[in-house]
Amino acid sequence: MRRVQLDQQIHFLTFATADLDAARQFYVNGLAWQPLMDVENEIIFFQIAPGVVLGFFEAGKFAEDIGVADAPSISGATVAHNVDSRDAVRAVADAMVAAGASVLKPPQPGAFGGIFHAQVRDPNGLIWEIAHNPGWHVEADGTVVLA
Amino acid sequence: MRRVQLDQQIHFLTFATADLDAARQFYVNGLAWQPLMDVENEIIFFQIAPGVVLGFFEAGKFAEDIGVADAPSISGATVAHNVDSRDAVRAVADAMVAAGASVLKPPQPGAFGGIFHAQVRDPNGLIWEIAHNPGWHVEADGTVVLA
Repeated sequence: MRRVQLDQQIHFLTFATADLDAARQFYVNGLAWQPLMDVENEIIFFQIAPGVVLGFFEAGKFAEDIGVADAPSISGATVAHNVDSRDAVRAVADAMVAAGASVLKPPQPGAFGGIFHAQVRDPNGLIWEIAHNPGWHVEADGTVVLA
Repeated sequence: MRRVQLDQQIHFLTFATADLDAARQFYVNGLAWQPLMDVENEIIFFQIAPGVVLGFFEAGKFAEDIGVADAPSISGATVAHNVDSRDAVRAVADAMVAAGASVLKPPQPGAFGGIFHAQVRDPNGLIWEIAHNPGWHVEADGTVVLA
């Protein structure tokens, strides 16, 4: 009998979003991202990797979907985007601030793994790390290598 | 002048993890996932898509890294894994419970998009949705299509 298990794959990553219009303003207008789907007052989806979708889900509907009473805020989660130089960390962090993000940690050496990074928050509180990580690369087939 | 912006790509997704040993027990021993890197009392990384890494970061160190005082718990975030049938939703949800997850929503039709899904929590509170979504597919080049 084949053992059923969870394959090592995430297809959707979804965050409770207090202000969906602010999310649209930031990602679509500010950062020129292309939505995969945009349903007003409900959810905005963006493809953010091969086969992977990021969703911003109106917080009340998020709460309803998981069966809790209060609209949750985002906590205990970060997403990270890697770039190829320290200058690119500074430039991308600046671009995100220009689009409406707030600075949590200005560009600086990180405590872990020899990285140089900045941390900013999007208008709904999602923390983005912009990092130059010399020990990380992705092979042509999508395999991630960490030194 | 080239406009600098944030490319539409996430490379790392990281969650504050109260009990890193419980995360290892669940994902590595329970679900047979292969870590990309495992640093005791600090972080466990898993590749979960081409070029994308999921990290479980010890909550105190997570807090230190983003400069907050209290170790945060996970809130306002879900990850989803799609399967190709309603039976597979039931079987994968059962396998996750057998590995140590708790049931949040038993397998049932969802409110959005014609899906059939279950929701379970991992030992540190991360909510997983296991879904059969007839309107979703991924093309050979990784492009996601939502009907």
